[in-house]
Amino acid sequence: MESRNDTLPRITATVPEPTTGPLSFEELQLANRNRGLPLEALRYDITPTGLHYLLVHFDIPLVDAAAWRLRLGGKVKKEMSLSLEDLRSRPRCTLPVTFECAGNGRARLSPRPISQPWLNEAVSTAEWTGTPLANLLDEAGLAPGVVELVFTGADHGVEKEYEHDYARSLSVNEAMHPEVLLVYEMNGRPLEPQHGFPLRLIVPGWYGMTQVKWLSRIDAVSAAFDGYQQRVAYLYKRNADDPGEPVTRMRPRALLAPPGFPDYLTRRRILDRGRIAVHGRAWSGQGSISRVEFCVDDRSFDAALGKASGLFSWCAWGVEWDTTPGEHVLSCRATDSAGNVQPTDPPWNFQGMGNNLAQEVSVTVR
Amino acid sequence: MESRNDTLPRITATVPEPTTGPLSFEELQLANRNRGLPLEALRYDITPTGLHYLLVHFDIPLVDAAAWRLRLGGKVKKEMSLSLEDLRSRPRCTLPVTFECAGNGRARLSPRPISQPWLNEAVSTAEWTGTPLANLLDEAGLAPGVVELVFTGADHGVEKEYEHDYARSLSVNEAMHPEVLLVYEMNGRPLEPQHGFPLRLIVPGWYGMTQVKWLSRIDAVSAAFDGYQQRVAYLYKRNADDPGEPVTRMRPRALLAPPGFPDYLTRRRILDRGRIAVHGRAWSGQGSISRVEFCVDDRSFDAALGKASGLFSWCAWGVEWDTTPGEHVLSCRATDSAGNVQPTDPPWNFQGMGNNLAQEVSVTVR
Repeated sequence: MESRNDTLPRITATVPEPTTGPLSFEELQLANRNRGLPLEALRYDITPTGLHYLLVHFDIPLVDAAAWRLRLGGKVKKEMSLSLEDLRSRPRCTLPVTFECAGNGRARLSPRPISQPWLNEAVSTAEWTGTPLANLLDEAGLAPGVVELVFTGADHGVEKEYEHDYARSLSVNEAMHPEVLLVYEMNGRPLEPQHGFPLRLIVPGWYGMTQVKWLSRIDAVSAAFDGYQQRVAYLYKRNADDPGEPVTRMRPRALLAPPGFPDYLTRRRILDRGRIAVHGRAWSGQGSISRVEFCVDDRSFDAALGKASGLFSWCAWGVEWDTTPGEHVLSCRATDSAGNVQPTDPPWNFQGMGNNLAQEVSVTVR
Repeated sequence: MESRNDTLPRITATVPEPTTGPLSFEELQLANRNRGLPLEALRYDITPTGLHYLLVHFDIPLVDAAAWRLRLGGKVKKEMSLSLEDLRSRPRCTLPVTFECAGNGRARLSPRPISQPWLNEAVSTAEWTGTPLANLLDEAGLAPGVVELVFTGADHGVEKEYEHDYARSLSVNEAMHPEVLLVYEMNGRPLEPQHGFPLRLIVPGWYGMTQVKWLSRIDAVSAAFDGYQQRVAYLYKRNADDPGEPVTRMRPRALLAPPGFPDYLTRRRILDRGRIAVHGRAWSGQGSISRVEFCVDDRSFDAALGKASGLFSWCAWGVEWDTTPGEHVLSCRATDSAGNVQPTDPPWNFQGMGNNLAQEVSVTVR
């Protein structure tokens, strides 16, 4: 496994450093391809399939489901090759799971790391149906000395100088959690191509890079996986030379559904005066949500929290707000049961990961 | 109807002029909200629902389908109020229809009009199911002197200084075409919220602004509708003062599915040497596709054309290409049966409408 990432002659331009300059053409191309959640869709506990956010590194691969097999190999006692039908006939489990792109908030950093330029919108919740990974690993039998499982997708491309199939690893301990699923359905229907058809990994609580789509192989390995997506891409780094810390579980975040109605171009919101209900969702991969503060300018109120529909899905929150005419900035801020609080200063890092800076929404009350 | 667009005190910043400057924050917000077709999805004759392009001017409205009614009024002999069930029990028709945002290609213009900054990707095809509009209009009976039908959605917002519900009109003649449908299903399932649930208008051959989503009213009127989306937004204008010409049916365009595999950031394609198949789709709202030229650098080849799955859906095209090592630019260009050809110079206009300049894809053959 460790030699999977073949090094190509450097065929891309020099990877740009974080910048305070304007948006680049490359960022625009990515923003038009990838898809955020329109924030009014925070009204849905389960995001409609076609509204789920989407980040695809390379191309959506075309997979022939009849010929497709999941290969489970590497250091296992029994190698396995499973058809979609084999997987569907195994124990079945449905979980609502919220996940978020690790790069969510990147374009709100300054200097701004150059990649998909998310503002706040790279999060969604779906009901995922599949079979627990742990049973399958038990059946295959991990050999002594196995430390990680490597999950490889069918999507192929180049990132920086590395040509590779998208691949990520998990420790054996993390992979054996009962909520880790190999899923073939989303919201009660077979996966659509862009969400990983025919099979994807779901690791509740973790950022989106872990939810490997178009899964083709699982390999048990006896040394830490050094693939590009594991050792280069998804790291919290202070600068180019920092070896960095891995990005893992989601930091807490609350978002509010912008109230009133928008101006098309600026997305500024227009509200009538009077009492209005403001609502949103909050989540964390490090605990349950224990508090959401709703802020109007520099005043803050505790929001009422709803019950999440599952251990790994966002919870609703809401407040009543007596609007006053004029210009206001609305914001919200989550705290989780592990004591993590959303920061008021953006947590800058070299690759723009995990920026859970509080959202701000400009409104005009008339 | 003519007084529906109330003029507000100007609550937005001055609308920016077309610019040669860098991308603005407002354009980024729109690009993250709206959704293009990832171009590899040109492989699908019918776009999977969750991959269909999306342009939403305001917010996706929340519609209670049980309480919802379509009101058909204005200058008709019999006003009507129809539930979703009423509409579903009327004659049913399914059509594959390709449509495209009128602003597709806007961000490739220079100077660049400031709005949703599409490059090439704002087009898709779906199978739409609904009931013909003409039957309904016959049943209601248009009064003498009616010249247009006005279609109003439930989406509400401000654009420039105009607060309005999204609304567009069609001449009686256009509205009576047998292929014009009131649709409640997309790809065999009820519309998802972002595609107009519970009902939208489909006018095959026309750009996307005509396919009014979240339809709430149809009004027969005896004077040309002067709503914002009709008289201000969707016009071909040479400059700010030009009264302009209305945007109507789609200009011809061909797109190719970028071959090989991509570099994540630049989207440059990498290909191995040898013979490869290149394919794409082409469409026009002004006739059938009669020719697609595939261009490699400055050489051009005629592509083989497939049969479109319907009168109003795109047709597949394909060529075999013997690649040669090095850097190349691929392009393609459609001609329709009315003799319209994609231009090699972008058809600039003040609002960035209908830019069907040929797509260019940079590739490295290794």
